[in-house]
Amino acid sequence: MTVASDIEIARAAKKKPIREIGDRLGIPEDALLPFGHDKAKISAEFIDGLKDRPNGKLILVTAINPTPAGEGKTTTTVGLGDGLNAIGKKAAICIREASLGPCFGMKGGAAGGGYAQVVPMEDMNLHFTGDFHAITSAHNLLSAMIDNHIYWGNELEIDQRRVVWRRVMDMNDRALRDVVTSLGGVANGFPRQGGFDITVASEVMAILCLATDLADLQRRLGDIIVAYRRDRTAITCREIKADGAMTVLLQQAMQPNIVQTLENNPAFVHGGPFANIAHGCNSVIATTTALKLADYVVTEAGFGADLGAEKFMNIKCRKAGLSPDCVVLVATIRAMKMNGGVTKDNLGSENVDAVRDGCENLGRHIGNLKSFGVPVVVAINHFISDTEAEVAAVKDYVASQGAEAYLCKHWADGSAGITELATRVAQVADSGVSQFAPLYRDELPLFEKIEAIAKRIYRADEVLADKKIRDQLRQWEADGFGDLPICMAKTQYSFTTDPNLRGAPRGHSVPVREVRLSAGAGFVVVICGEIMTMPGLPRVPSAEAIGLNDAGQIEGLF
Amino acid sequence: MTVASDIEIARAAKKKPIREIGDRLGIPEDALLPFGHDKAKISAEFIDGLKDRPNGKLILVTAINPTPAGEGKTTTTVGLGDGLNAIGKKAAICIREASLGPCFGMKGGAAGGGYAQVVPMEDMNLHFTGDFHAITSAHNLLSAMIDNHIYWGNELEIDQRRVVWRRVMDMNDRALRDVVTSLGGVANGFPRQGGFDITVASEVMAILCLATDLADLQRRLGDIIVAYRRDRTAITCREIKADGAMTVLLQQAMQPNIVQTLENNPAFVHGGPFANIAHGCNSVIATTTALKLADYVVTEAGFGADLGAEKFMNIKCRKAGLSPDCVVLVATIRAMKMNGGVTKDNLGSENVDAVRDGCENLGRHIGNLKSFGVPVVVAINHFISDTEAEVAAVKDYVASQGAEAYLCKHWADGSAGITELATRVAQVADSGVSQFAPLYRDELPLFEKIEAIAKRIYRADEVLADKKIRDQLRQWEADGFGDLPICMAKTQYSFTTDPNLRGAPRGHSVPVREVRLSAGAGFVVVICGEIMTMPGLPRVPSAEAIGLNDAGQIEGLF
Repeated sequence: MTVASDIEIARAAKKKPIREIGDRLGIPEDALLPFGHDKAKISAEFIDGLKDRPNGKLILVTAINPTPAGEGKTTTTVGLGDGLNAIGKKAAICIREASLGPCFGMKGGAAGGGYAQVVPMEDMNLHFTGDFHAITSAHNLLSAMIDNHIYWGNELEIDQRRVVWRRVMDMNDRALRDVVTSLGGVANGFPRQGGFDITVASEVMAILCLATDLADLQRRLGDIIVAYRRDRTAITCREIKADGAMTVLLQQAMQPNIVQTLENNPAFVHGGPFANIAHGCNSVIATTTALKLADYVVTEAGFGADLGAEKFMNIKCRKAGLSPDCVVLVATIRAMKMNGGVTKDNLGSENVDAVRDGCENLGRHIGNLKSFGVPVVVAINHFISDTEAEVAAVKDYVASQGAEAYLCKHWADGSAGITELATRVAQVADSGVSQFAPLYRDELPLFEKIEAIAKRIYRADEVLADKKIRDQLRQWEADGFGDLPICMAKTQYSFTTDPNLRGAPRGHSVPVREVRLSAGAGFVVVICGEIMTMPGLPRVPSAEAIGLNDAGQIEGLF
Repeated sequence: MTVASDIEIARAAKKKPIREIGDRLGIPEDALLPFGHDKAKISAEFIDGLKDRPNGKLILVTAINPTPAGEGKTTTTVGLGDGLNAIGKKAAICIREASLGPCFGMKGGAAGGGYAQVVPMEDMNLHFTGDFHAITSAHNLLSAMIDNHIYWGNELEIDQRRVVWRRVMDMNDRALRDVVTSLGGVANGFPRQGGFDITVASEVMAILCLATDLADLQRRLGDIIVAYRRDRTAITCREIKADGAMTVLLQQAMQPNIVQTLENNPAFVHGGPFANIAHGCNSVIATTTALKLADYVVTEAGFGADLGAEKFMNIKCRKAGLSPDCVVLVATIRAMKMNGGVTKDNLGSENVDAVRDGCENLGRHIGNLKSFGVPVVVAINHFISDTEAEVAAVKDYVASQGAEAYLCKHWADGSAGITELATRVAQVADSGVSQFAPLYRDELPLFEKIEAIAKRIYRADEVLADKKIRDQLRQWEADGFGDLPICMAKTQYSFTTDPNLRGAPRGHSVPVREVRLSAGAGFVVVICGEIMTMPGLPRVPSAEAIGLNDAGQIEGLF
């Protein structure tokens, strides 16, 4: 049997004009700003007019700790959206935009896979509607204005050693991680050490994804701390007077994008902040807009549930006033097996014991998610090699944890393969049983917030942080930032800070290496371990094989 | 009398849907890729299908050497296009796209002025259809792949001191002119000196604007010389294997953009290479496409005619097989007066003698343009302070040079103010009197090409260049680049290399400071004097005043 590749399936998609997709959600044509015939932004005026409408049900798709076997979180998000539409519900999905740079390193991430994809795939992996380019421009305008301020006399008394605002580029370019700028003499300014992050790591990205409207966007941009004086007082973007121009550069990027799934259902694709130093979810404005236009909104969070869902709950939902009605936790038999100790080469053979052993990781995520007061349904994303006995073992285990698991075949069959899950998710969401509450209160001291996450989500015994870090947190509390939520940056592969510790470890410690204040985005980043904010290219970058074929189609990108 | 500002006039424009503008040119709706409702790209397939159609008439708008008084070259280009349409001709204009970065330094350049503008003005000064962002990405992908090649073992034996490919950003950021990259240890590569230019100075921009189709684009990108080995042999982009991926990034950017004038006439706005180190005209593909779709195409060249028109003729027309049918040379009474020695403060008072004295600059440009075999018509772009005697003085002078001058009031009156010029230009273009030929043959040695321009256009006595430069030119001839045209980079304010020498100086020398090979674009850049490829921001950047007003409109950009 020949299985069609993701790109072959995507190219064969029978896309509908984007105005028809908008029409399905009741968006009039003049409220759609088209980008080609298959992409559009939704106008700010139209979104403003939705305020008084009731919200649909919010469904979060998250996953166990990722394994090299792959879990299929986005695929399941797309499939579930299609499944809900297939059973007669008015549903939309909300996912993140892809970053352009990394596509030239490793092969680009498709938006979903198999028969559960979002199209147009090529555009979504390249320039799309230009949002990330706008973020790059806005970020670097601020950078230029900081050095320009110093150049023309430094009235704000910026300590040139303490400029914390770097530059960004949407490219994997390790040469830019650490640079010295303003060389070449008097006309080029004052030399200092700086560097570039990849655009998705920009605080501007996090801000765009948390802002509720343009006024909120500008306020948050203004709050960004760009540098410190010798006396350690902070200097903000507002003092540099860049917030207005940055808002202008981001005006269009703030409008959510809609595209469609292979089954012609609406998909909001907007924003894509890093899931480590930022919160890793699509934009608040996309989610809130989708909730006004659809009865069910399926969205996803980055990484595993310990990072992605935790931030979705404690940062995005808290700040945007959102309340999830159901969580779908994605797992695969293969990932269970890997967690149970099977090596990648042996994933194809039945091993019920290993599956059972590997379920511990799944079980802990179920418990964690329930602690937010939200009902959990497990989606087993089917692979061809899964056996009935293995699937039964997972279902039994999930039942023992007080939840239900459904086998889903959306990758192979599209919506037809996921109607059982969709039906149950709709029931759960409609039931009103969700009693969502974040994990910690705004008033809790910052260090205790970190402990709450480490102990109740990671199940660590303790958080290790030296005096300098604890003092810094206390200083921020004194400066009025004590009510911010925490954004944890640690490995996605384990509940611990050691990526090799799979399963559900206990008795570990969480060492805090560094803390950073994202005053504009509105969270304190807590870094545990090495965090890379500018990737490099591999020895043979995928770019070498990317090109147009004779039909003008893109080859090598996927 | 209150005169409306450019931005007020632009905002009051009654724009038609872009599909109606396309329809005027016979472009079917499915061949238009919309960007919002007022911008579109024209599909590559549709353009391919135009090959066998006859060409319309090509009209170049150029100007005298710029003065602080302003000449209004773009305004006249727009006005003439509207004027031709007003007298019943099917005309389109072709102009360059604006660079985003500089808008945050000085106030942004509107596209035209008064009642001769192209809209949507805000978009055109910001992200527009993303072309410049795509160029930035393509350029920097190549930069990243060069350092990545060195990092992984440097199989091509790149001399790290001789990497000539810099990075780019569409931002005025002097701190990036001269940087050291790859600091921070082993994982970040080999430290070396580098720098950033502004995106419009990228050779990728020049290439995009000279390429005839995607295959030609990829071939030219592959030809870019990125570095040299210790033995001075060149390493190309093709050897780095970046040309395919760069072409993918530029696929959409290669499609020309159409928008409209205030009078709803079609305007092609595509590409915007620097006018000093590159050729300074809109894309070849926009011009050739417009010529297939309209009976008259009005386009412009950067700077004054000594640089802009010379490059239009010797680079763009030569390489693209274009043949201009008429040149319109723009002058103003105020600029004549400044050339005649009047200071800026006294431009408002009548001074016929100064006007007459200042006409020398105009006269030399007329003679130069005629030497290309193309008929010249002078447009006097009217200012409210011009007196009848002053206008008569210019007309008389132009007549004495064997040409005709027309007073044009398109700024105040739109097409109604420029019908006389439009009528005459159409007559001249239709007459078939043009006998275009470039200034020099492909086979002429490179140094003699430089001399041809310096002596016959600048009217210099000699070109000064030391042995190193002459040897370099001979080496390029030996390497097979001898048939390339010359791209002069010198001040736009004078025929000489001294910006203060107005009028029509004689007896000067042209000192060549540096020569550069743009092997992908296909020209040799000859640098006379200081050329800035990365601007800085002023003490008070216009960005500080830019922001959204309560109506969501952009303030401070213009």
